[in-house]
Amino acid sequence: MATATRRMRKIINEPDQVVKESLAGLAASVPDVLRYDVANQILVRADAPVKGKVALISGGGSGHEPLHGGFVGVGMLDAACPGEVFTSPVPDQMLAATKAVNGGAGVIHIVKNYTGDVLNFKMAADEAADEGIKVEAVVIDDDVAVQDSLYTAGRRGVGATVLAEKIGGAAAERGDSLEAVLGFIRQVNARGRSFGIALSSCIPPASGNPIFDLPEGEMEVGIGIHGEPGRRRAPLGSAAEIADIMVEAVTSDLAAKAGSNVLAFVNGMGGTPLLELYLLYGEIDKRLRAAGLTPVRNLVGSYITSLEMAGASLTVLELDDQLTALWDAPVHTAALRWGG
Amino acid sequence: MATATRRMRKIINEPDQVVKESLAGLAASVPDVLRYDVANQILVRADAPVKGKVALISGGGSGHEPLHGGFVGVGMLDAACPGEVFTSPVPDQMLAATKAVNGGAGVIHIVKNYTGDVLNFKMAADEAADEGIKVEAVVIDDDVAVQDSLYTAGRRGVGATVLAEKIGGAAAERGDSLEAVLGFIRQVNARGRSFGIALSSCIPPASGNPIFDLPEGEMEVGIGIHGEPGRRRAPLGSAAEIADIMVEAVTSDLAAKAGSNVLAFVNGMGGTPLLELYLLYGEIDKRLRAAGLTPVRNLVGSYITSLEMAGASLTVLELDDQLTALWDAPVHTAALRWGG
Repeated sequence: MATATRRMRKIINEPDQVVKESLAGLAASVPDVLRYDVANQILVRADAPVKGKVALISGGGSGHEPLHGGFVGVGMLDAACPGEVFTSPVPDQMLAATKAVNGGAGVIHIVKNYTGDVLNFKMAADEAADEGIKVEAVVIDDDVAVQDSLYTAGRRGVGATVLAEKIGGAAAERGDSLEAVLGFIRQVNARGRSFGIALSSCIPPASGNPIFDLPEGEMEVGIGIHGEPGRRRAPLGSAAEIADIMVEAVTSDLAAKAGSNVLAFVNGMGGTPLLELYLLYGEIDKRLRAAGLTPVRNLVGSYITSLEMAGASLTVLELDDQLTALWDAPVHTAALRWGG
Repeated sequence: MATATRRMRKIINEPDQVVKESLAGLAASVPDVLRYDVANQILVRADAPVKGKVALISGGGSGHEPLHGGFVGVGMLDAACPGEVFTSPVPDQMLAATKAVNGGAGVIHIVKNYTGDVLNFKMAADEAADEGIKVEAVVIDDDVAVQDSLYTAGRRGVGATVLAEKIGGAAAERGDSLEAVLGFIRQVNARGRSFGIALSSCIPPASGNPIFDLPEGEMEVGIGIHGEPGRRRAPLGSAAEIADIMVEAVTSDLAAKAGSNVLAFVNGMGGTPLLELYLLYGEIDKRLRAAGLTPVRNLVGSYITSLEMAGASLTVLELDDQLTALWDAPVHTAALRWGG
């Protein structure tokens, strides 16, 4: 028994088995939705490949649950490729996933902009192309906090990934072409912006240590989903002050037309409870309306997390009728489920 | 600005406004589902009262979100009465809710067995009866950890409350009679058992202090949802050991027939992320099957919480065809949503 394990406040067995065991548990909970391919460490939609349907794949380091495995299923992803905690998956996983879900209409890789993910998905796409599979990739880079970062050239990919997977997944499910699905995913990335703050670090199971030191009473403003430092360290603000920061950062960068309809996604980082996320949503809703935007859709909960980190992020997506209809379309995954 | 606020790792404004502001935020996020009656501090289904439908109400201290407000909507609760954090709501709230949702077919109070809740719901029911409304109550007491506790005579009411609200709500929605709906709710309580463990305390916003001291590397075995002490303090076990404790406690008390179908509800206490809950579900699924039970349905996530406490609980409900069909019936609330 690893001593480090038992010193953390975590429900796990051996730290090096956390991801594999968590994937197995997820698969056991939704056998009608997905299957776990243990050899390739990928989660694949139960009925894959769906003949004639554009297939969507995403992936990245684990520790952001329910992203991505919780979003595999009808109306969203065809497969997810989880790496170890905060570690990119390898090209072999992505290639195996691409082959497993290819229904002949093309495969789209939805890639959060982290250098390792981008490189590895690119290698897998090249290999798949060599085997005659048509693969396209969209790199999501919606985080307005920083222009370049510790792990990226350009902006980081965060909350808009969830929205791209839902909206692209709905378009693929209804039978849209590869070009059409690609267009919607690119539109989500082009019209989505995010900004996050952290109130605590998280503790990766393998190290057993916080990844950064954040004393009570301070917040990290502009974090990524691995706790990467953002714009600045500041005294912890009130919910109203935090909402001010988030809404200003996101709306000033998005520059949506006044009167636009938007989707407001208030996301918990894993250790912040719904009591606070509901409260924060209320503050954000008021500020978006004051800024001339109408939040006609929203998502409030912990969907792209950083283990048990306390904190939250805001993603705002400018909607049109098509994106709204795709958001509303039925979905059946472990973590998002409605309609149908 | 209260200094204590800013020292916590919480996204809030003034500590004494947390509940009101959180309720307002929830209501702003789902205006099609429910409305917030500010004067009475209750959440009411948007289309209440539904004429001719049995109405379901629950309530209790806040800090357990999404319980109960997140479960108000079509196919589940007609109203929720939230008290302050970990504090019983008052009879006036319950009376106002009872009158607001009474559709003429009777009103059922689903009450977690905590002394204050039970007394206050009883007073409200008596007053409602005086006004000619037919009210019945079911007290949920599914926690096998302790026979009596700090806040209860008899067992505490925990995870089975969520299942009773879903299953009773589905029966009411399809038009079942008061007696029939009552019967299903009582059956859920009779055939449901729960057991929880904590890996950390939570910090109520009003005090700014942990409600108990639990060093890293230890766990509280048999907790209630306010961190009430349970059976014992023990060194933190592995997920496998925790699953052993939970499954043994629950199944030995339930004494279901071998071969029974069950619903396994693996619930996070607020600060434990899905990565761990999925892993724990995998351990529990295996042990239930080894015990001769078949988990044909499950719910994995943080649905009855204790603010940001780290920990988890298991609820097992013995199913029959009727309960299974009611579980599967459409529901549209902030926190549970499928079908329809």
